[in-house]
Amino acid sequence: MEDQSLKPIRCKAAVCRAASEPLIVEEIVVDPPKAYEIRIKIICTSLCHTDVTLWHKVDPAFPRILGHEAYGVVESVGENVEGFAAGDTVVPTFMGQCDSCASCAAEWTNQCTAVPFTMGPGMRRDGTTRFWDGEGKPLSDTVAVTSFSQYTVVDVNQVVKVDPAVPPKIACLLGCCGGTGVGAAWRLAKVQPGSSVVVFGLGSVGLAVVQGAKMCGATKIIGKEFGVTDFVNPSQLGDKSVSEVINAMTDGGADYSFECIGISSVMTEAGRGKTIILGVEKDSQPLCLPSFEFLFGKCVMGSLFGGAKPKTDIPILAEKCMNKELELEKLVTHEVGLTEINTAFDLLLQGKSLRCIIWMDK
Amino acid sequence: MEDQSLKPIRCKAAVCRAASEPLIVEEIVVDPPKAYEIRIKIICTSLCHTDVTLWHKVDPAFPRILGHEAYGVVESVGENVEGFAAGDTVVPTFMGQCDSCASCAAEWTNQCTAVPFTMGPGMRRDGTTRFWDGEGKPLSDTVAVTSFSQYTVVDVNQVVKVDPAVPPKIACLLGCCGGTGVGAAWRLAKVQPGSSVVVFGLGSVGLAVVQGAKMCGATKIIGKEFGVTDFVNPSQLGDKSVSEVINAMTDGGADYSFECIGISSVMTEAGRGKTIILGVEKDSQPLCLPSFEFLFGKCVMGSLFGGAKPKTDIPILAEKCMNKELELEKLVTHEVGLTEINTAFDLLLQGKSLRCIIWMDK
Repeated sequence: MEDQSLKPIRCKAAVCRAASEPLIVEEIVVDPPKAYEIRIKIICTSLCHTDVTLWHKVDPAFPRILGHEAYGVVESVGENVEGFAAGDTVVPTFMGQCDSCASCAAEWTNQCTAVPFTMGPGMRRDGTTRFWDGEGKPLSDTVAVTSFSQYTVVDVNQVVKVDPAVPPKIACLLGCCGGTGVGAAWRLAKVQPGSSVVVFGLGSVGLAVVQGAKMCGATKIIGKEFGVTDFVNPSQLGDKSVSEVINAMTDGGADYSFECIGISSVMTEAGRGKTIILGVEKDSQPLCLPSFEFLFGKCVMGSLFGGAKPKTDIPILAEKCMNKELELEKLVTHEVGLTEINTAFDLLLQGKSLRCIIWMDK
Repeated sequence: MEDQSLKPIRCKAAVCRAASEPLIVEEIVVDPPKAYEIRIKIICTSLCHTDVTLWHKVDPAFPRILGHEAYGVVESVGENVEGFAAGDTVVPTFMGQCDSCASCAAEWTNQCTAVPFTMGPGMRRDGTTRFWDGEGKPLSDTVAVTSFSQYTVVDVNQVVKVDPAVPPKIACLLGCCGGTGVGAAWRLAKVQPGSSVVVFGLGSVGLAVVQGAKMCGATKIIGKEFGVTDFVNPSQLGDKSVSEVINAMTDGGADYSFECIGISSVMTEAGRGKTIILGVEKDSQPLCLPSFEFLFGKCVMGSLFGGAKPKTDIPILAEKCMNKELELEKLVTHEVGLTEINTAFDLLLQGKSLRCIIWMDK
């Protein structure tokens, strides 16, 4: 029986009414959680390039609330929700983990098939929204997380409990860039101790890959900073190609190449060994490779969320942050309040920020 | 000091004097083994598609002796060869395994970097040949195995000792198609119990993949025969594509797709999950895939020799053949003597054979 005590909540959210237009912080209404859903008070969220991509996209989902990397506290739970209670500190995630389907049991995939990932819009079980504007018109969600709102509703499969001792900024980053980048090195590529790693694109995800590779014991990490051992500046190579320079630095090619930019020419340039694709190709160019290269051991792989399983891996990564094996806080370059959320967009678009934390009560 | 007792051997070999011309069985001279080399009396060999590809290729390496899938007995060993003695039953392999370099120690690669694989010509340590025709002119080798000769010389890194109880035909197949196909499922793709597998191309390698997938516990294997559970005939699909039919049969796409033909359009068609490339693209077309697909977990990989390490894995596979977990003998459809070797080519070119064993003393 539905819990009649659960009422809609009025709160503030940053609403995107049309593609590429500044977000408007306005009062909205958030429905109570339905069965298998949890309503979360968002403490802080951060801006990811994927939000910018969705913001630019001319999409029938407008008006919508963006945001998918966040940290919050459970406000209330719907029917059939087990293991969560009001006050729990949590990270909502775009990847679900039901822990009862064959995919969740499998070691080799993080794609839950019981309630599968989709870009949306809508909650994944019923396709409907929980968000309404001041005039009662529906607002679309974002990957069923929708964190640019002071309250959100998320499926129980997409909520991960974290130790309240974990600093909110770190927990927030684990929901997307941290989990994706570290996961890609640790869970997807399974970087081996003593190996060589190249990271193309040193934004937040790329830098999280560097930290993940270091955590896995890679001894040569070619990139730019935060634990990187070597550095290639493409504008200072003379007549050599990036791959020629990297091959020379790694005795024939890196063991792992992480592509965190989204440019297919770079994906093609990535060396022998494993090529891990974390950036979506911006111009929709296909990735073309000589099939011959695969016979010599080339492997191209990718994943959502770095191949990590959110409920299994976020708590492990949070612990590694607490004991300083990972230093995700270094990715936070700026912090703003919800009313300044457009500043976070400006900083990212101008290349001035890595992660900008948005505090929802400010 | 070099063992002066080692003398050149006169024997018969099938010599390929020009591209696509029938082989000529003639008397040749095989040098004694140099340091780190083993001279092997070939008992039987078989014809692989790669031999046919090399036979067709207009190559400066002609005249040459083809053949790289074989079984034999050690005739003599050169200096610095440890662990082998005359009379040992062995499989020579195109992949080396020195067991002392970092790559041989690594779990993730089977490419020895101490004496790396090359297509040749020549022995891999010094680039020279051990084969001479009746007029004393050099004959090229084939991937440093060269088994269409009654005697051959092979680097110690490329010789695997096998139990003399293993039937010669089975041991022979483990040197290429058996090791490659079973290895691809077992070592490279690491097929999981209960998973679904599609095999494109049911030649000897494809059928060995099927056996390997079955050995690993795959429950749905789509292909044609020898343990295959389901079958797709591309000419009877009506207006549906192969991938549509396979997706319907596997609840959204096979977990593993093995491409054993060498056609890039097929490689592209292979489903979600892991795509394992074992065929070289015949028309040198690159493999082009939407980079987006990788984010949803697509993984494209390949290897030489199915990712198996010859010295580690051939004895294990031989044991699995002995206890009937594998039935590689089913791949042998024909047997001929050395003087009939051109019949083996005809049968393979006409699609009438899977593996044709060539007995060297007949």
